[in-house]
Amino acid sequence: MKSHFSALAALSLLAATAASAAPPPLSLERLADDALENDRVAWDFVEGITTEVGPRQAGTEAEARGRDWAVKWLKANGFAGVKVEPYKMQTWVRGEERAEIVGTFAQPMKITALGNTASTGAAGLTAEVAYFPTYADLVAAPAGSLAGKIAFISHDMRPTQDGSGYGFAGPARWTGASLAASKGAVATVIRSIGTENHRTPHTGGTTFAEGVTPTPAGALSNPDADNLERMFARGKPIRMKLTLTPSVLGETDSGNVVAEITGRNPKLPPVLIACHLDSWDLGTGAIDDASGCGIIAAAAKQIARGDRPLRTIRLLFAGAEETGLWGSRAYAAAHRGEAIHAGIESDFGADRIWRFDSNFTQSAPALYQRLAKAVARFGVAPSQEVATGGADLNLARESKSAILDLQQDGTRYFDLHHTPDDTLDKVDPVQLRQNVAVWTQVVGILANEAGAITPGA
Amino acid sequence: MKSHFSALAALSLLAATAASAAPPPLSLERLADDALENDRVAWDFVEGITTEVGPRQAGTEAEARGRDWAVKWLKANGFAGVKVEPYKMQTWVRGEERAEIVGTFAQPMKITALGNTASTGAAGLTAEVAYFPTYADLVAAPAGSLAGKIAFISHDMRPTQDGSGYGFAGPARWTGASLAASKGAVATVIRSIGTENHRTPHTGGTTFAEGVTPTPAGALSNPDADNLERMFARGKPIRMKLTLTPSVLGETDSGNVVAEITGRNPKLPPVLIACHLDSWDLGTGAIDDASGCGIIAAAAKQIARGDRPLRTIRLLFAGAEETGLWGSRAYAAAHRGEAIHAGIESDFGADRIWRFDSNFTQSAPALYQRLAKAVARFGVAPSQEVATGGADLNLARESKSAILDLQQDGTRYFDLHHTPDDTLDKVDPVQLRQNVAVWTQVVGILANEAGAITPGA
Repeated sequence: MKSHFSALAALSLLAATAASAAPPPLSLERLADDALENDRVAWDFVEGITTEVGPRQAGTEAEARGRDWAVKWLKANGFAGVKVEPYKMQTWVRGEERAEIVGTFAQPMKITALGNTASTGAAGLTAEVAYFPTYADLVAAPAGSLAGKIAFISHDMRPTQDGSGYGFAGPARWTGASLAASKGAVATVIRSIGTENHRTPHTGGTTFAEGVTPTPAGALSNPDADNLERMFARGKPIRMKLTLTPSVLGETDSGNVVAEITGRNPKLPPVLIACHLDSWDLGTGAIDDASGCGIIAAAAKQIARGDRPLRTIRLLFAGAEETGLWGSRAYAAAHRGEAIHAGIESDFGADRIWRFDSNFTQSAPALYQRLAKAVARFGVAPSQEVATGGADLNLARESKSAILDLQQDGTRYFDLHHTPDDTLDKVDPVQLRQNVAVWTQVVGILANEAGAITPGA
Repeated sequence: MKSHFSALAALSLLAATAASAAPPPLSLERLADDALENDRVAWDFVEGITTEVGPRQAGTEAEARGRDWAVKWLKANGFAGVKVEPYKMQTWVRGEERAEIVGTFAQPMKITALGNTASTGAAGLTAEVAYFPTYADLVAAPAGSLAGKIAFISHDMRPTQDGSGYGFAGPARWTGASLAASKGAVATVIRSIGTENHRTPHTGGTTFAEGVTPTPAGALSNPDADNLERMFARGKPIRMKLTLTPSVLGETDSGNVVAEITGRNPKLPPVLIACHLDSWDLGTGAIDDASGCGIIAAAAKQIARGDRPLRTIRLLFAGAEETGLWGSRAYAAAHRGEAIHAGIESDFGADRIWRFDSNFTQSAPALYQRLAKAVARFGVAPSQEVATGGADLNLARESKSAILDLQQDGTRYFDLHHTPDDTLDKVDPVQLRQNVAVWTQVVGILANEAGAITPGA
């Protein structure tokens, strides 16, 4: 594969520097079509970083190795202005993690700690479990009613193409532990916020409200949550021993990686395309979000094979998304006041793009229609949904810029999200290339659009 | 569900004790058809033991709880002669298990220890990895060539309906560690003998040849083995740190659970139907082999709802199959000399039976044809394959009895086999009932067959 990329790079160089001797640069349409059939750049990124670096947890030395790797890769792939923009962050890391039912129905269960939670201490913590089938049941529990107990929130999640299931089930993870702690719980276990039935629990961050002391909290795999429900159906008290020993490292170094394809007029506001470079520690972060970085970088590189775009295309490989959007916030702070032509993020796996949303569908209908028409041949449908951008587009939102969402098929995303199973083999190379094709088309049009875009739903 | 079973039991009792007031007992055909639509007994067994006991590793207190549970369940379901037949065994148990690539491409990997292997000690063991794409490559390695290294055998397995893929890939687990150790390896890691791509490594026993000192050995999950192969494709030396701390408990207690449906003539050799009650510790042993025990028990109970069979149906829930067929060997030793009319085992999951083999297809063709015809309506095909029975039929083999194999669809069996993912949710209730129906039909015919069956391929 390496030699294939070199040949492509050489061809591109030839086209740029010896136009009279070489065929004219490919049109944007031809470049997008070519990406659909032939792109190997996105795969090269995902395969490379997952194999050579693996997990890249925010704030750790593994994330730093990921940044170094990405800088080297971006330079080798011809990007300009490649650099790390450092920032500081608070870092939490996983420790031992074990759960077991003790006494009646004694058996081990598979658990993983949630980000930002407290330790049980090495000796663990044993308590009776209080069962809440849904988050609403926990909300309804009286104050103080969980004193001395472990709360079990079994709120389940269904797969949806647009990922909306995450919104319904997510609160159990995002705020369940805090809510349970506020009612006296000594710890919380949730059913994994995930849509598959493997013994690979889903981690993710949780937040404790102001004034609530963090407790230990973890997610059980779905088969373990099913088993625990069956135990409760038998009507007997259930006791669990939890051993979760995460720790807070305090302030550590992290950073964003930026790069660009410099436009013909670098003074014009750039197109900002974003992904995140960090991953949870359990998998190798292939789907979340090496794929996003591979897609946006491959599209930018593909555009650069044609005529140089009018505007600069700025790449943001954000750091530390998973543990609190540290990178996105740092980028917004460092670049406050810089205008952005439009912002787009890829952070929902590697499956096909099926819908195209913007926040200028009504205010710039001609542009929206032109973009929508241009991606129709890749199976992407127009929409009346209003794009809000993703986690790494804080700057675009703060500056009230144009935002586009190239919606990916999320049907199987939450089978893998935040689990050990987020590995390279889950990436479908054919769908990955469709992403690159759509991004090439959309970013290419935007980067050649002279006029500013005024958002307006 | 409990009330449903009670109703069935009451109906059965009514049929047996008040024949004049109740409808006549159902024919075997009607009973088998009924099982296909309505059986809940097999599910009740699998759901019950996986929920209330969970994993049942051979020789441990968990296996003992499994025996107690099974004894109680068999008595509650009306079986006669329910008892434990104890024996002693050598017991190995898992400890900590971690693998990580150190130095170049440093990252953690998912591993599980293989049965009967040695400990690295708590401090672990770090060595360069020697890569063998297949078992044959390891066989070809010169004597002494692995001195000081960790052997990595990446022999992969493909799914097959008849499970034959296990025969091709299995040697990497069964004898790979011994072979590598004989050539100087300090430890062995294998690609999981499994057909899926989850980060759930497959355990299983391995055997060290006479004169070969056991080493640490474990199985990597398939995605980790893929990753390690990609590292080797980059042509750099790869080092791994292994921490595997299993231990040998020495001689512990185990036991077989036996029960029966007593025939009209208990002096005739019985039909022996077998499964195993122990499981590996990683999952809850739903597929391997609570399902087998549920199927054979449900079929025997269903047969008992009709006319009492001529011959006794003897159930053997064998102990300690996974770690060396201790239960099967103990049963053969304890019952040596007892004639068996025919032996059948269920130990290949819970998916549908698709083929019917025997070791009397040629010597008793009329009986074979009658049986084959009787199960054709359940989608079971006849065959010229010679049945050899399973792990728990040592006695039947030793006594050269008639043996039948009701072959189950094994296409997805090795996705789950010996992994944490062997849990209740993987059992398809519809296919489970098809198993009970076929077993009801076949065992019912055999138990009412007056003449002895002479095996002869």
